[in-house]
Amino acid sequence: MTVHMQKEIENLKSKLLTLCAAVEKSLCLAVQSVRERDAALAKSVIDDDVHIDQTEIDVEEECLKILALHQPVAIDLRFIVTALKINNDLERIGDLAVNIAERSEFLAGQEPISVPFDFDAMAEKTQWMVTESLDSLVDMDCKRAHQVCAADDEVDALNRKMYKQVEATIVAHPRWTRGLLHLLSVSRHLERIADHATNIAEDVIYMVEGRIVRHKAEDYKSQS
Amino acid sequence: MTVHMQKEIENLKSKLLTLCAAVEKSLCLAVQSVRERDAALAKSVIDDDVHIDQTEIDVEEECLKILALHQPVAIDLRFIVTALKINNDLERIGDLAVNIAERSEFLAGQEPISVPFDFDAMAEKTQWMVTESLDSLVDMDCKRAHQVCAADDEVDALNRKMYKQVEATIVAHPRWTRGLLHLLSVSRHLERIADHATNIAEDVIYMVEGRIVRHKAEDYKSQS
Repeated sequence: MTVHMQKEIENLKSKLLTLCAAVEKSLCLAVQSVRERDAALAKSVIDDDVHIDQTEIDVEEECLKILALHQPVAIDLRFIVTALKINNDLERIGDLAVNIAERSEFLAGQEPISVPFDFDAMAEKTQWMVTESLDSLVDMDCKRAHQVCAADDEVDALNRKMYKQVEATIVAHPRWTRGLLHLLSVSRHLERIADHATNIAEDVIYMVEGRIVRHKAEDYKSQS
Repeated sequence: MTVHMQKEIENLKSKLLTLCAAVEKSLCLAVQSVRERDAALAKSVIDDDVHIDQTEIDVEEECLKILALHQPVAIDLRFIVTALKINNDLERIGDLAVNIAERSEFLAGQEPISVPFDFDAMAEKTQWMVTESLDSLVDMDCKRAHQVCAADDEVDALNRKMYKQVEATIVAHPRWTRGLLHLLSVSRHLERIADHATNIAEDVIYMVEGRIVRHKAEDYKSQS
């Protein structure tokens, strides 16, 4: 019975990792589509989201099956509950990558906007957070998870900076308003993705240390 | 044993309803603070979020305790898993109400902006969705839950309209840019709250009908 459950938990982990890989890829391509003004690439991100949605449903069903059939306790139970939550965060990162791709489709058809926007810095930091949060999950590595939580403030600061830059650019060039509002949305979506990566990292810490660190932003703020 | 578990599930329901009430109140006050340009009210929303965060942790611990001690199956298991997810959505609605309140604090200190903004319509529809989704949970009423899902497109449409209005107003009055960007954020936060209410309604449908309706927006789009 326990061996059987362990096998099913391994299957679940493998499905969750498939979802991780798909979400990372989707985010990477969405960011690339903005950078390269590539509407076709953006469309592929939007079209492929259906697979992410289906995998999320599969992972949840798998969790429910294990809970119902094997009634896990202790660390196994904590893993299943954490998997349910991380599954949710991953699916939402996928949705946000789609939102970025939608903005990218619009931006690709417009004249390029010259705004001193830290897009590369923000995109890279956010992608790093997603990758690190998922690696911390795979390796059950709390140290990396804590680093992800600490990085969230940096992305928040870049997003705030973006607001100021957009505001100044709009005042100087009102005709760019529409494009700039779309760019602002991209920045905001990245900031939300960073929040989800932080949620995942917090869940990893909870799973490994059994300690709830969410809602304790002050723990990290001092480090950033 | 089963009687004991049912009692604990009743306790869990009661805690979840406490959280529902706190989140509804927080949203209501945040919206009121924008409407009445009341920075003190906005501050009270921000300060009170700590109680919502604590209740969310309590509900999750309660869910884990029931899963570990009683190993529920069938409808009870589905209820616990749904409670875990709804708990998460409620806490995020609370965070978004705080985000609205933060914007409200800024807006209260600025000169009023005359934008033909459907703020009242959007705020009322979003609040209605939150209340209905929570009532559908309390009454296990799928009909109301489906109505919530159908309403999400209306809020999305109002948010898109808001973007266009803000864009046009910025082009006409660039000096209002900062205030308008804050108003745009409020609109976006409302739209995200509506998304979370939709998640809750979808989870209610899943719990009652055992049917996954999320990722099937087309089911509702035709109705709106």
